[in-house]
Formats: sequence, structure tokens, C-alpha cells
Amino acid sequence: MKIENVKPDQIETKSFEIISEILGDKVLDPRYEAVIKRCIHTSADFEYADSMYFSDGVIEKLQDAIKNGAYIVTDTTMARAGINKKRIEKYGGEVLCFIGDPDVAAEAKERGVTRSLVSMEKASRLDGPVIFAIGNAPTALMSICDLVKAGKLSPVAVVGVPVGFVNVVESKEMMIDSGVPCIVARGRKGGSNIAAAIINAIQYKIVE
Amino acid sequence: MKIENVKPDQIETKSFEIISEILGDKVLDPRYEAVIKRCIHTSADFEYADSMYFSDGVIEKLQDAIKNGAYIVTDTTMARAGINKKRIEKYGGEVLCFIGDPDVAAEAKERGVTRSLVSMEKASRLDGPVIFAIGNAPTALMSICDLVKAGKLSPVAVVGVPVGFVNVVESKEMMIDSGVPCIVARGRKGGSNIAAAIINAIQYKIVE
Repeated sequence: MKIENVKPDQIETKSFEIISEILGDKVLDPRYEAVIKRCIHTSADFEYADSMYFSDGVIEKLQDAIKNGAYIVTDTTMARAGINKKRIEKYGGEVLCFIGDPDVAAEAKERGVTRSLVSMEKASRLDGPVIFAIGNAPTALMSICDLVKAGKLSPVAVVGVPVGFVNVVESKEMMIDSGVPCIVARGRKGGSNIAAAIINAIQYKIVE
Repeated sequence: MKIENVKPDQIETKSFEIISEILGDKVLDPRYEAVIKRCIHTSADFEYADSMYFSDGVIEKLQDAIKNGAYIVTDTTMARAGINKKRIEKYGGEVLCFIGDPDVAAEAKERGVTRSLVSMEKASRLDGPVIFAIGNAPTALMSICDLVKAGKLSPVAVVGVPVGFVNVVESKEMMIDSGVPCIVARGRKGGSNIAAAIINAIQYKIVE
């Protein structure tokens, strides 16, 4: 096998060209193409060409909120690490994750619930617009739905792409049915890398 | 769809049971089963049941090195974030990532190479045994192979699971051919989440 000589600043462009070639005749909705292709780019998994759900106008809602300095709250430190913070911080926003906070761990243990759930409750007490990026825990997604239903939370939008085998598919359908603006990867697949990729694809397309 | 009522501390066990059910009659090498299943657990992608390469004795080499406080160097902050540090730090080890270091960025720009490559060169100057966990950059993996060939680096082992479309497949085959102890996910798939999952699976199986 031969190593291709691709300049560092051309690797991403070349990758997206190859993704387009492989997609071939498959038509992606131009409104969502950048997000879908970045999910494929980050996973090399073409199932994302078919599994992504976008509620009406969600891209614009997310871009407007980022431009207005919204908080982005993740369920894992991995997702937080994967989000490009330069532009978000330029707009006055911040990427937060409460999963490792000692008060969250203590309360989760006491109540016999997941730390993910408690960390979402903590996020619901933030002062200001909040975007959620959930790549791991279905309990985080379900907790967001419950908080919205109880009138305790009104997120700008939710990126809901937990991965796994227990309540993952169900939590995503619950999210879609909730009426909250959202982007969801239907099925079992997703991940912290996918959650970060979606937020990044959306912020890279912000027109100044 | 019905949400299953699974207690927080049972979610992982239940997930692994479902993975085993789906794998059905497929036989995994018992030496590698825990690692392969954790890759599937973190991605919901059953291709990892077929794509993983393990060099002889690599699991034991990694476990011994972790017990002896080896450095674990990642190519992304996401992989670093995903590795469970409790046990690693208990043994005196540390999880490092140089990709965001200003000196790495400056040198990469000056030389027209990737920051991943320069960050691997920086890792080669560490004093002590080093494990690499590469989930993103094929240039990191190729750079490790070059440094080994030049006699400038002798890692304990390399977890080589970059993801993508440019030189990814090739860099992994280069790693396998290098003779360095390694775990590789052949093909285009992998990721920072997979790199972290492999290190975690291995450290969770350390017998005290």
C-alpha cells in the first residue's frame, strides 16, 4: 500500500471529497449535508447518511444561539474536549460538563440515579440559553425530556446522539417526540465524537 | 417504545449481555474478548468483532506497563478525556497529550507537517516507558513508525485506531508491519473513543 502525500491543510478537504465520492448518487438534504458529512468524517460510518433526524429550523436556531453566546452543555468530558472552543468563546459562550463534579456524584449515589441525570438537572439551573450535546447517556436525554415536560428547562436545542444498548433507541425517539428542537442520530449509534462533530459542523457554517 | 427500568450500576452489565446475545455464535478469542466487546460497547458497531488485530502478548505488555506507571500518550484531547485515570494514576502513570501545546503548533507550521507528527516527536523525548493511544491521526501513527525505524523511540505498545479517509488504512498496516507491539482496528474505522475504550478495557482487566 502506498502512502499518499497530502499536505496537512489539505487532509480534511481531501477526506470530504472521498466521502462525496463514496456517497455517489445519494442525495443529502443541502440544509443538513455539512452536519451529516462531518459525522461520517469523524466515524467513517456511512450509516449516518440515513439515520439523522433534524427538527425544522434547528440549524438556524443553533447558529443564532452560538452567536449569542449560549452555553453548550455536554454529558461527557470527551464531548467537551471534542468541541472546538475558539469561536464559541469568541461569541461569549462556554462549553460545560458537570459529570465529574463531586456534588453531582454524591447526589446521584444518594438518589440511586445516574450522574448523567443529575448533571442535566444542574444544567437546568444555568442562567442563560443552553444547547445540549449528549453523546453518551440516554438517561441524560430522558432527563432533559422530563425537565422540559415539568417546565423546568427550555433548551435552545438538543443534539441527542447517545450510543449503546440500554434505552438508547427509546431515549432518542422520546427526544424527537418531545417537540424540543433537536438533531438526533436514530438507532443505537452515536457517541461523544459524533456529538462534538455536530456542534463543530454547525459552528463552522456560521456566516459572520 | 418502552423505557426499560435498569439501575445505574446495572446498565453496563446489561449492555454487555445484549452485545453477547447479538454476537450469538460468533466466537471471539478469549484473550481479546474484553477489548473487542468494549469497542462495540462504545460504538454500537459490530464491525469491530472482525477488524481488530492484536500482536502476540500485547495485552500483557500493556498491563505490565500500566502497573509500572507508564505514560500513556494520546493524539487528541478527546482520547485523553476518555481514558479512566484513577487506576493509571494510582500506579504512578499519567495520561498526556501534546497536540494543543503552543510549541508543537509553531513547529508544525514552520515545517509544514501536522501537529500530530510533532506531538509524537515530543513524546519520543519523554523519560520512561510510553504507551501510545492514537485515535485520530494517521500521521501520528506513521510518525511513530518512522521514529522507531530511526532508533529514536521504543514504545511499550501502540493502540493504533485512527479513523478516516486519507492514509488511515495504510498507516495501520504500516504499524502492524513495524513489529512494534500493537492493537489496531484495520480499515477506515476507529476514533478517539475507540482508543480510550481499548486502554480502559485493558486496565479494567488488570489483576491486582
